[in-house]
Amino acid sequence: MLVLFTDFGLAGPYVGQMKAVLYREAPGVPVVDLFADVPSFNPRAAAYLLAAYVTEFPAGTVFLCVVDPGVGTEARRPVVVQADARWFVGPGNGLFNMVAKRARVRQRWEITWRPETLSASFHGRDLFAPVAARLARGETPDGVEQPWQAEELTGWPEDLYEVIYVDHFGNAITGVRAQGLRPEALLRVSGRTLTWARTYGEVASGEAFWYENSNGLAEIAVSSGSAAEVLGVEVGSGVQVVP
Amino acid sequence: MLVLFTDFGLAGPYVGQMKAVLYREAPGVPVVDLFADVPSFNPRAAAYLLAAYVTEFPAGTVFLCVVDPGVGTEARRPVVVQADARWFVGPGNGLFNMVAKRARVRQRWEITWRPETLSASFHGRDLFAPVAARLARGETPDGVEQPWQAEELTGWPEDLYEVIYVDHFGNAITGVRAQGLRPEALLRVSGRTLTWARTYGEVASGEAFWYENSNGLAEIAVSSGSAAEVLGVEVGSGVQVVP
Amino acid sequence: MLVLFTDFGLAGPYVGQMKAVLYREAPGVPVVDLFADVPSFNPRAAAYLLAAYVTEFPAGTVFLCVVDPGVGTEARRPVVVQADARWFVGPGNGLFNMVAKRARVRQRWEITWRPETLSASFHGRDLFAPVAARLARGETPDGVEQPWQAEELTGWPEDLYEVIYVDHFGNAITGVRAQGLRPEALLRVSGRTLTWARTYGEVASGEAFWYENSNGLAEIAVSSGSAAEVLGVEVGSGVQVVP
Repeated sequence: MLVLFTDFGLAGPYVGQMKAVLYREAPGVPVVDLFADVPSFNPRAAAYLLAAYVTEFPAGTVFLCVVDPGVGTEARRPVVVQADARWFVGPGNGLFNMVAKRARVRQRWEITWRPETLSASFHGRDLFAPVAARLARGETPDGVEQPWQAEELTGWPEDLYEVIYVDHFGNAITGVRAQGLRPEALLRVSGRTLTWARTYGEVASGEAFWYENSNGLAEIAVSSGSAAEVLGVEVGSGVQVVP
Repeated sequence: MLVLFTDFGLAGPYVGQMKAVLYREAPGVPVVDLFADVPSFNPRAAAYLLAAYVTEFPAGTVFLCVVDPGVGTEARRPVVVQADARWFVGPGNGLFNMVAKRARVRQRWEITWRPETLSASFHGRDLFAPVAARLARGETPDGVEQPWQAEELTGWPEDLYEVIYVDHFGNAITGVRAQGLRPEALLRVSGRTLTWARTYGEVASGEAFWYENSNGLAEIAVSSGSAAEVLGVEVGSGVQVVP
Repeated sequence: MLVLFTDFGLAGPYVGQMKAVLYREAPGVPVVDLFADVPSFNPRAAAYLLAAYVTEFPAGTVFLCVVDPGVGTEARRPVVVQADARWFVGPGNGLFNMVAKRARVRQRWEITWRPETLSASFHGRDLFAPVAARLARGETPDGVEQPWQAEELTGWPEDLYEVIYVDHFGNAITGVRAQGLRPEALLRVSGRTLTWARTYGEVASGEAFWYENSNGLAEIAVSSGSAAEVLGVEVGSGVQVVP
């Protein structure tokens, strides 16, 4: 299975252009749109989001990930990462640090292959998609191994106390894993203190609360409403645990 | 064929997470995104929308439907419905009442199977998708038959005199089937009285009208414009037939 | 491969309804969503957009294209176009003129086949999708050849000095091919004069510039920002090359 994780937006041509490459180069492999609206220009928030959503995919899944403000510059290297038995292809800008940090085994290669024509701005189509398709066909990565630097892994906190994604309902997903919080924990966001609930239906309509979302992250929600509107939270809004 | 009908939004991860389950559990079965933006928290409007869009799908189609404000609560039961030769999987909150009401034969089962891990908020992925995949593979439903109560069918009017969906163009789809209206009928919405036209090109640019949409519903439109903007209509706006 | 190019919006049912027909009538053929948000009611801008995005698709690809304000009227004829080795199905309203103009060989047929039921407003599902599916299965077009009129091809300029699409990032794609411009060229748009850059990372954050996008068009962008917001450009905004 191939999984797409980008900030391209679903509405433009970019996701479709990448899929056209994948369908051609890895025929018969299902392609899943996981996220097409990861916060733009923000590989750090995206890294925490990605790490929370990979675990439900089986061994062998190839994630094609593009949040790539540095595309086409020399400093940003294209990479393949193997974290436990899953594969990741995309820019080496920190996007895969949390996936790697949480894996028991991790390996990374700089992609040295280049296509005949490489645009300056769309490596997702020209470079990453063909490499991802080859991995999905079972080929081994072809490049130069690039060991992890200690600070790439230890320099990143275990949880990110920020809103990292706001969904279609206006729910605000944080970079904080709920397993580390007690149900009695109060979360403070946007000047408001929120109590925990198990699910929407247990909260009065219009009331704000936090809960453990279906991928294990603490999420800020308003029952039958939009937390983004009611609380004014957005990507980057800070989150504190009230002691 | 598997068909998705949800209020999840296309942009977030939820549709993709359900598809990943479907691709794994029912390999080779095509999955169609019908609606991902059904009005949230409104199973009643969604029920009329669903009933108008199922008829073009062949016998054996499995609809995976999630408009589920009561997810995770005890009162809301997960169900499988068979209406004529089509299958429906989702919450038993009225969402399938109109499909059942319009079918010649209908049957319903409460889903008693539970997955190893069931999140409190995402039964679409954890419960409904695996069940839908099994039906798409040809298995018979496994659960407790739950007969229809008379009021579930007779308590719902044949047509819903409201706007039930506003599309990308700003067209306002109503819950009223056009076959019951004469072309001379005038529709009153948002303080305006609208005449009928057969199609867009027969109306002057910028003018509002109603027509029978391609799924048989009366739809409010503005030629080369947005009815939602021009008329200020939205989901829930009332519609009257002028006598 | 089947490729969709429409102004339907991804969020509504229309793209899914067309795909359901394609999956049924051309099983196993991959379907790619290229654009679902081409500027509405604007077949001319769409014609330049389409022509820039077809070249990366292989011979035999079938493009199902619907930007169709005249749907259901007598004047607008349904057509199949072959341009070099690619196929195009949709309304004969100019949408395919640029693709035809840039091809070495071109042929056009008026579609005379009609389905049993043809709605007045959704020929994409009822007429164009079944025809596209047949072409994708390898059938030859069935209709009346309709030769190109000289003015359909020579009456359209080689490039369109307008914004023809604004993407998810707020980047403004123009109808001007960059290969005809020197890197020193200045582009004037919305009262601002913009210099060229190769890619985003070479420009200071927040600065506006133009670059050759990954499909060869001159595109207006703001590094780590939205050109649409910063410059106030939108579809139809004029673009001039400063002499």
